Amino acid sequence: MSKTTVLTGITTTGTPHLGNYVGAIRPAIEASRDPNVDACYFLADFHALIKCQDPERVQQSRREIAATWLALGLDTDNATFYRQSDIPEIPELTWLLTCVCAKGLMNRAHAYKAAVAENETDDKKDPDAGITMGLYSYPVLMAADILMFNANKVPVGRDQIQHIEMARDIAARFNHLFKSEFFNLPEAVVDDKVAILSGLDGRKMSKSYNNTIPLFTPEKKLLKLVRKIKTNSLEPGEPKDPETCTLFQIYSAFASGDDVSQMRQRYAEGIGWGEAKNMLFEHLNEQLKGPREEYERLINDPAHVEQVMQAGAEKARERSVPFLKQLRDAVGLAPFV
Amino acid sequence: MSKTTVLTGITTTGTPHLGNYVGAIRPAIEASRDPNVDACYFLADFHALIKCQDPERVQQSRREIAATWLALGLDTDNATFYRQSDIPEIPELTWLLTCVCAKGLMNRAHAYKAAVAENETDDKKDPDAGITMGLYSYPVLMAADILMFNANKVPVGRDQIQHIEMARDIAARFNHLFKSEFFNLPEAVVDDKVAILSGLDGRKMSKSYNNTIPLFTPEKKLLKLVRKIKTNSLEPGEPKDPETCTLFQIYSAFASGDDVSQMRQRYAEGIGWGEAKNMLFEHLNEQLKGPREEYERLINDPAHVEQVMQAGAEKARERSVPFLKQLRDAVGLAPFV
Repeated sequence: MSKTTVLTGITTTGTPHLGNYVGAIRPAIEASRDPNVDACYFLADFHALIKCQDPERVQQSRREIAATWLALGLDTDNATFYRQSDIPEIPELTWLLTCVCAKGLMNRAHAYKAAVAENETDDKKDPDAGITMGLYSYPVLMAADILMFNANKVPVGRDQIQHIEMARDIAARFNHLFKSEFFNLPEAVVDDKVAILSGLDGRKMSKSYNNTIPLFTPEKKLLKLVRKIKTNSLEPGEPKDPETCTLFQIYSAFASGDDVSQMRQRYAEGIGWGEAKNMLFEHLNEQLKGPREEYERLINDPAHVEQVMQAGAEKARERSVPFLKQLRDAVGLAPFV
Repeated sequence: MSKTTVLTGITTTGTPHLGNYVGAIRPAIEASRDPNVDACYFLADFHALIKCQDPERVQQSRREIAATWLALGLDTDNATFYRQSDIPEIPELTWLLTCVCAKGLMNRAHAYKAAVAENETDDKKDPDAGITMGLYSYPVLMAADILMFNANKVPVGRDQIQHIEMARDIAARFNHLFKSEFFNLPEAVVDDKVAILSGLDGRKMSKSYNNTIPLFTPEKKLLKLVRKIKTNSLEPGEPKDPETCTLFQIYSAFASGDDVSQMRQRYAEGIGWGEAKNMLFEHLNEQLKGPREEYERLINDPAHVEQVMQAGAEKARERSVPFLKQLRDAVGLAPFV
């Protein structure tokens, strides 16, 4: 198999919003259909345990995120879609990698350093106060996620580049110690043109700003939220500037090139905000209606989603089981015959 | 099942010598026959990877140690005997525990602190130089070893008490966070009367002093080594003091009470060292001959040993699989239906 392997981890916390969709989910789902790529997508539910000790929330989030990606048309025939926690080879590989990973590498991880820095400004005595081994050592788990499927490329945000470098470092050390090129050295793929959507208040759409439009919010609620998008006080008939307009920016992320041109024209002609908002709602709703219905169907049919996840795990384990066997043999854990 | 569960980890490095046998292996094997105890014994081969990156050595050691314990009569019907690396639930539980384990706990581990102290005396810049995540985080793996089988008691040396305390700490935190008494709080059992055998030079028998008598050394070599045991220069006919005599001490560890009394009498009567050494050799050889032959048979029949290990893993997993399922459900990783 000479296809490039591209691996994408999906955080299983929070409810996806339009910003997540435009910036991350939509391009990833498009990529899942590329027959020239070996694409792996996984729900990073072992990672979810680091920050969340609320089992209900972890479980609900896993179900919602799985249903979301399936509803949006993730191609599970072409791609491999699985829950991290369904692959027992991943924690096992994590231990093999733990044994070759320098502690100093983890000391330099951004997330850990940020937590220490916060403790230090708080003048707490112990810089490690409140820091769990999960937070500290998760880059090793992430390396196992990537190396288990020998990914060539890992699409990530800038803040994640360091983790891919760590995975390379750990992979190279393992290859060196056990004298074979078991692992590819994965590359981070950072798309600097990634679409950033504005939220209700004009700032970047983000859960932490409380300005999001949830992806699968019901129709009525969607209309309500669209009407809340902040605009200026220009009256109908007065020409409006699309470039500084949140409404226009969101519209552009969902409409065709022709529709965007027409809307630009309507702005120049002084379209009223009410009408512009109605048009945005129509566009959004048209695109989201189908997936929203599918999402509702899936969320009410957990048995089906479970079946899809099991099939994905089986597909993934066709690779992880024999590969881990090879790695176990290499470190000295082969069967006695 | 109200039996007490006693869990013993067996290091898979080095070749067992008479000192290991008298101090640790013999009492453990006797304990394996106690029908009132649920005894678990495992080859700690995941731990072996921390210090040893030589796959041949790891593999050879696992085979030798397995054959040794079986040859000495470990009761695999009454006890459960398995390789740690055959239980995928252990590394998985390790991750669940990693997420609830405070990093500060690991900072206080003796082995880690000793490694840091050594770096600091060496005036190296980085106190973590040369320290792997394996060395740093293995108390979490050890907690998983213990908690996976909900051990009540763990026989350990004094240097290991801290690890059992850490396992208790992690178990209590998990129980608290997930609101149920999933785990027993294990207790360290330290036997201060543990037999310490002297080596060829009179110091404690230890690989690091290079003064050992390997347990299954061939007969001729055994005689040769016994003859090397350091004695004083008293001639035959001169009375000898058994209390300060290495030879007598080793003899006592293998002979019956009657035989020891007789030997004490012979010392008073001035037994010659040559004769005393012959008598020790006869006693040792009589006891070790059978197990040595069985060991040779087993080491030349790896398929049989493998079969025993697989059966042990199956028996262990009858417990670890359903228990891990329960723990996964508790943290939010249940199947969707």
